[in-house]
Amino acid sequence: MSYRGASEIFLGSAGISVGDSVKITKKDISYEGMLLDRAEDADETHLVLKLKNGYNVGINIENATIELVKKGEKPKIELSKLDIERDNQKHDISIISTGGTVASIIDYKTGAVHPAFTADDLIRANPELLEYANIKGKAVLNILSENMKPEYWVKSARSIADEINDGAYGVVVAHGTDTMHYTSAALSFMLDTPVPVVLTGAQRSSDRPSSDAFLNLLNSMTAAKSDMAEVMVCMHATEDDTYCDLHRGTKVRKMHTSRRDTFRSINTSPLARVQNGGIEILDEQLRYKTRTDGEVELQDAVESDVAFIKSYPGISGEIIDYHIDKGYKGIVLEGTGLGHCPEEIIPSVKRARDSGIPVVMASQCLYGKVNMNVYSTGRKLITAGVISAGDMLPETAYVKLCWALGQTDEIEEVEKTMQTNIAGEIEDKSSIKYFLI
Amino acid sequence: MSYRGASEIFLGSAGISVGDSVKITKKDISYEGMLLDRAEDADETHLVLKLKNGYNVGINIENATIELVKKGEKPKIELSKLDIERDNQKHDISIISTGGTVASIIDYKTGAVHPAFTADDLIRANPELLEYANIKGKAVLNILSENMKPEYWVKSARSIADEINDGAYGVVVAHGTDTMHYTSAALSFMLDTPVPVVLTGAQRSSDRPSSDAFLNLLNSMTAAKSDMAEVMVCMHATEDDTYCDLHRGTKVRKMHTSRRDTFRSINTSPLARVQNGGIEILDEQLRYKTRTDGEVELQDAVESDVAFIKSYPGISGEIIDYHIDKGYKGIVLEGTGLGHCPEEIIPSVKRARDSGIPVVMASQCLYGKVNMNVYSTGRKLITAGVISAGDMLPETAYVKLCWALGQTDEIEEVEKTMQTNIAGEIEDKSSIKYFLI
Repeated sequence: MSYRGASEIFLGSAGISVGDSVKITKKDISYEGMLLDRAEDADETHLVLKLKNGYNVGINIENATIELVKKGEKPKIELSKLDIERDNQKHDISIISTGGTVASIIDYKTGAVHPAFTADDLIRANPELLEYANIKGKAVLNILSENMKPEYWVKSARSIADEINDGAYGVVVAHGTDTMHYTSAALSFMLDTPVPVVLTGAQRSSDRPSSDAFLNLLNSMTAAKSDMAEVMVCMHATEDDTYCDLHRGTKVRKMHTSRRDTFRSINTSPLARVQNGGIEILDEQLRYKTRTDGEVELQDAVESDVAFIKSYPGISGEIIDYHIDKGYKGIVLEGTGLGHCPEEIIPSVKRARDSGIPVVMASQCLYGKVNMNVYSTGRKLITAGVISAGDMLPETAYVKLCWALGQTDEIEEVEKTMQTNIAGEIEDKSSIKYFLI
Repeated sequence: MSYRGASEIFLGSAGISVGDSVKITKKDISYEGMLLDRAEDADETHLVLKLKNGYNVGINIENATIELVKKGEKPKIELSKLDIERDNQKHDISIISTGGTVASIIDYKTGAVHPAFTADDLIRANPELLEYANIKGKAVLNILSENMKPEYWVKSARSIADEINDGAYGVVVAHGTDTMHYTSAALSFMLDTPVPVVLTGAQRSSDRPSSDAFLNLLNSMTAAKSDMAEVMVCMHATEDDTYCDLHRGTKVRKMHTSRRDTFRSINTSPLARVQNGGIEILDEQLRYKTRTDGEVELQDAVESDVAFIKSYPGISGEIIDYHIDKGYKGIVLEGTGLGHCPEEIIPSVKRARDSGIPVVMASQCLYGKVNMNVYSTGRKLITAGVISAGDMLPETAYVKLCWALGQTDEIEEVEKTMQTNIAGEIEDKSSIKYFLI
């Protein structure tokens, strides 16, 4: 039990344990429900109850009284330690936790959500997962994903490679949703994997009744046991707890601030739909890499001094100059339309390229592909040496440039890499078909 | 006729005029079709034919022979001069041209598209428009819209105000599509208009058979004659030439690099559907401002030293510091998820605010709204003084901050303005409903 200090004493005085039904009274209000456990680093003055209406509530113990209504039943699985006997009939799946909402709890003191769970906590909060596989949990990071950075992509990639080399049949990566698509792209380039690597997360934390964490984790387990040996994102495909979509790691993007079905494949179809332990391929024409007995190949070198700059009316070329002078090694421009920026800043773009800094053009439209051959501005950009991102998402183009610059210093090699499909990120033909569905 | 130099001599020698059916032979290949006119500044060595299959082709006259197949018919309306008699039965609509594809032609020498038309050329290319209104054409700019900047928003707003004050019943603004949504937002804040102001453009230039220019212009005329006195965008709503959608100027975004139906209302419904001269309101709950006899109110002051910065894994706080030190007056961050950035850069964000520079947080998800109360990172941003963009598009938040800083130097006033709905840009309740449709 993770209640400490004042709350531990408060509960101990009444002989109450996690799982018991209790009634807490404060002034004129009574709360009746089941006492939930809290994370290791929670504050000492709040209890968390699951009320009968299904909602969780945090209650400050100050001026509160508590009485036992009914002793809780012992949980089916002893969760205090997770060394459950290995079942040879089940596959070995590793869950790697990097933090994020899926591994978060509400801080009932402030009402804010922050990352707190370890990978084992994640399993403790979702014990049903143990019925579907032999699960090994490992915490690599414990951050909200807005704090992700290239060096953490490397750390994550290495951990995943270790798990695969240790015999994992598949790997599930718990990750914050804010930048999950940047990380899924990075892992797609870094890992040539013989087994599925499935990133998942949640838009509501596990200790909320409306949490999407469980279904996302469960369907990710299904995906991790499948024959699809790619880096993928598995998240809710609707607002209800119906099914998840499995997206290619390089073609997916968070498209809504709060909805559960926030992740969408852009310029392509999701690879598959995952539901009730089954996987349905959504587009037979979309090829995917299948499971092998081979080793994982890890190419984890990455350049972190890459700028990602959005073009807009009024942008100054000085911002490009700043990055050149600061010693940045690459620049991705998120241009307008087919891949444009104001003509005024093209001299700075040319200066970057002349200084040996590759400049890649993506489009802030998100859908469709860059084509700098149509308009005069685009042609000037081509002349200035700008590399087209094709139908790559701007975020994927940024991640890929970090990775390409990790593999080589030769600008021609970087250009070649950027324009070669490595992990399904370039798929030019499909850009018209999959708009806003 | 705009053929000059060598091509004029070439055509004159065979007695051929624009509109004639001709056969051009080069080596073993013959092209048969109708001779099209070219723009004033086209090169002298290419002719443009509309082939029988409907496509246009540019042919270099070098080593070519030409023969007349059939004299063309005289055009119904004499387009060489546009001082057509005013019809009192028709409304007066002003078409203001700023350039862009709708006012562009293909340069057949290079194959690239560049802006070339004046407003009168626009009417010449689409003479059918004259049947629907008394049209007055005016060219304010002649640029591709990637070259738009805040000072041009001001110039455009003033021209539109002049037209309205001169009695225009409605104004159509021809604009490039790349940054049309930035301009439509700017005009929405700058103009409190008593009549419709309708921005439109094209994804294919007018001299292409697949051009969307005509339908967009025609439906914009319908919108300009309607009772909806707002700044709006009128563009194709499908891939076919069926109908257009009319979007509120502050809630629209270019979402595809090449499709005709690239413009989408985000976090709201389009205001109306425009088809066959009629307007159908799409969401009765969405209020709009109606036509009055009043004056136009012009608030065109704008601050152009505003930075628009996308947050990404690996971004450095130094980029914020750079803008502070350069004397920028405001910063819009396009954060991740509910409105986050790496915690590492929050000290720089705080420094901006402490230096009197407002920092506004929008979300790169595009759909949904910013809510910095949910996660610890968001709360730290609120503490650092960051202003929420709510459900505003990042592009609209950027334009609005430029405008708000034009109205006042007081940071508290700027904050209040950013969080007050001025032109339909804040519409918090609707953010869940209108996702990706």
